[in-house]
Amino acid sequence: MAVYTDVSDEALRAFLSAYDIGALTAFRGIAEGVENSNFVLRTTGGTTGGAAGNAKGGVAGSDFILTLYERRVNPEDLPWFLGLMGYLSDHGLSCPRPVAARDGAALRVLAGRPAAITTFLPGVWPRAVTEAHCGPVGAALARLHLAGQGYDAVRPNALGPGSWPGLLDSCRRDGDSVQPGLVAELDAALAEILPAWPAPGALPRGQIHADLFPDNVFFLDGAVSGIIDFYFACTDILAYDVAICLNAWCFDAQGRFDAARSRALIAGYESVRPLGEAERAALPVLAAGAAMRFLLTRLYDWVNTPAGAMVTRKDPLDYLPRLRFHRAASAGALPGAADHGF
Amino acid sequence: MAVYTDVSDEALRAFLSAYDIGALTAFRGIAEGVENSNFVLRTTGGTTGGAAGNAKGGVAGSDFILTLYERRVNPEDLPWFLGLMGYLSDHGLSCPRPVAARDGAALRVLAGRPAAITTFLPGVWPRAVTEAHCGPVGAALARLHLAGQGYDAVRPNALGPGSWPGLLDSCRRDGDSVQPGLVAELDAALAEILPAWPAPGALPRGQIHADLFPDNVFFLDGAVSGIIDFYFACTDILAYDVAICLNAWCFDAQGRFDAARSRALIAGYESVRPLGEAERAALPVLAAGAAMRFLLTRLYDWVNTPAGAMVTRKDPLDYLPRLRFHRAASAGALPGAADHGF
Repeated sequence: MAVYTDVSDEALRAFLSAYDIGALTAFRGIAEGVENSNFVLRTTGGTTGGAAGNAKGGVAGSDFILTLYERRVNPEDLPWFLGLMGYLSDHGLSCPRPVAARDGAALRVLAGRPAAITTFLPGVWPRAVTEAHCGPVGAALARLHLAGQGYDAVRPNALGPGSWPGLLDSCRRDGDSVQPGLVAELDAALAEILPAWPAPGALPRGQIHADLFPDNVFFLDGAVSGIIDFYFACTDILAYDVAICLNAWCFDAQGRFDAARSRALIAGYESVRPLGEAERAALPVLAAGAAMRFLLTRLYDWVNTPAGAMVTRKDPLDYLPRLRFHRAASAGALPGAADHGF
Repeated sequence: MAVYTDVSDEALRAFLSAYDIGALTAFRGIAEGVENSNFVLRTTGGTTGGAAGNAKGGVAGSDFILTLYERRVNPEDLPWFLGLMGYLSDHGLSCPRPVAARDGAALRVLAGRPAAITTFLPGVWPRAVTEAHCGPVGAALARLHLAGQGYDAVRPNALGPGSWPGLLDSCRRDGDSVQPGLVAELDAALAEILPAWPAPGALPRGQIHADLFPDNVFFLDGAVSGIIDFYFACTDILAYDVAICLNAWCFDAQGRFDAARSRALIAGYESVRPLGEAERAALPVLAAGAAMRFLLTRLYDWVNTPAGAMVTRKDPLDYLPRLRFHRAASAGALPGAADHGF
């Protein structure tokens, strides 16, 4: 859940006084987002451009999101994240736009945490993914990739393949408590995936979202109305972002691959940015790697979180059927997309 | 935290199709409220009266709260709660107004839970209570009491003094694990409070909120802009509601009584509804009882909640200094307000 830090009345008042967004009229903690504390902030509306709704002083006011960045986010990365969001927003992507205070700075401090106000996006994230969502989300991902091309600053992917052996090592002692044999299976999968991983420069790179799960994509009337939560974004292989989405959107609740959703997602993506031959051929190993990445970070959290801690641990085993599928579909010889239907 | 039950897209769409509140434009789970699942629901605005903001189709739309009632609320009580909220709203209190669907019913079913849409209220609940909050909240409580006088349906207080011996019995085995000697201290306090409790008919009764903690009171520009969370409301001694507020608003974070806040709260209350002599004289025992009620229900939750459960348990011991204060201030002879400053 998503209010780890609460904000005192006086601190909030002082914080908002730095902005030209009008007077506070409502303030509610929101339950979504796992890493940070988020609040919906309503004001009477101000002079800041880009606010949702009728920001120019309409009676119903303007809504914003106030985010306090908690310990999972490295404060040194925040200028890059906020810069990317502003850039993508300026280039036509519907994503949260950081709102600058009067002094020009969007990244500030509140309640001892780095904090920023961003615009509120309309829409509802899909609780039950269907094939109909997959085309629009693929297209939105491609638009994100194209829009990000002019954002030059590089942020390496701290959770890329180079990090996976170390993550697995730190789960080696306790990993089998989650499922017997798990560590050996992940060792074998890593030994298959890492040598097959695309060489630097082999595939187009750029700014990727790297966490485009359904709860980060808002829909309105069947179209994508917003993409949120850029706090895993980084500079990496664009097709890896597609592979992350394949895992996040194209498996059913029982962990079974849904080829129709996959085809729809890729077709949606290619309606905006066609994949090259090399990208398409690499999708199986990228998808296996994407499954490995989420399995490992969830496993790390699982074995390193005290059982009584008041946090939601996501089940690492959700990602085991995905990993197995990508390995089996490639018949032990990644890459190779025989049964993927890619 | 407050999203126990999530809502599928189709179920939400079907649910909203029964209402004349416009088309859904945003839907966010909110982190406040402990007992139920709550969402902020934004629509394009509709024809239903009483909606917040410019409900008649303004561009910025209307906000509502969607509540799914979880297991702590007895579904049989919901018509009484919603009826009270509608009645109080009709009689000038700023509280959530249940929104009826086209068929006239406000209480419906969603995701297998009883569910209702209510209007969204402006304001921010005070994270740090000061004396300045106490006058307005006292006055708001008195307005609630007066407005409720015409609502005739009775709901007995299931957590009234009659329930306390049983609650304490169910904590008898494990209560001292929270603090050694706690059970014996509560036994002694109960033996003092129960015989001193006002006889039926001795004090004015009516509809009371019974849970008016700071997170249930929104302020805007120093005034109370809304009172929420009526799901402990019941028919009981009006001055007992004042006593609950004295405990909730007039002790500091270290559990020390703040006489200035108490005087402000009572003066605020009396600016709308003067207390009778008998009510004033009963405040010490009512306040001791109010401390006992919250201590006991928190203790019950504490000893009956598995340590690993993903729920927030409130510390029962927060209420022990309050209970001790009220007993000591009355010098072991409740009622009697010598050191309370009432």
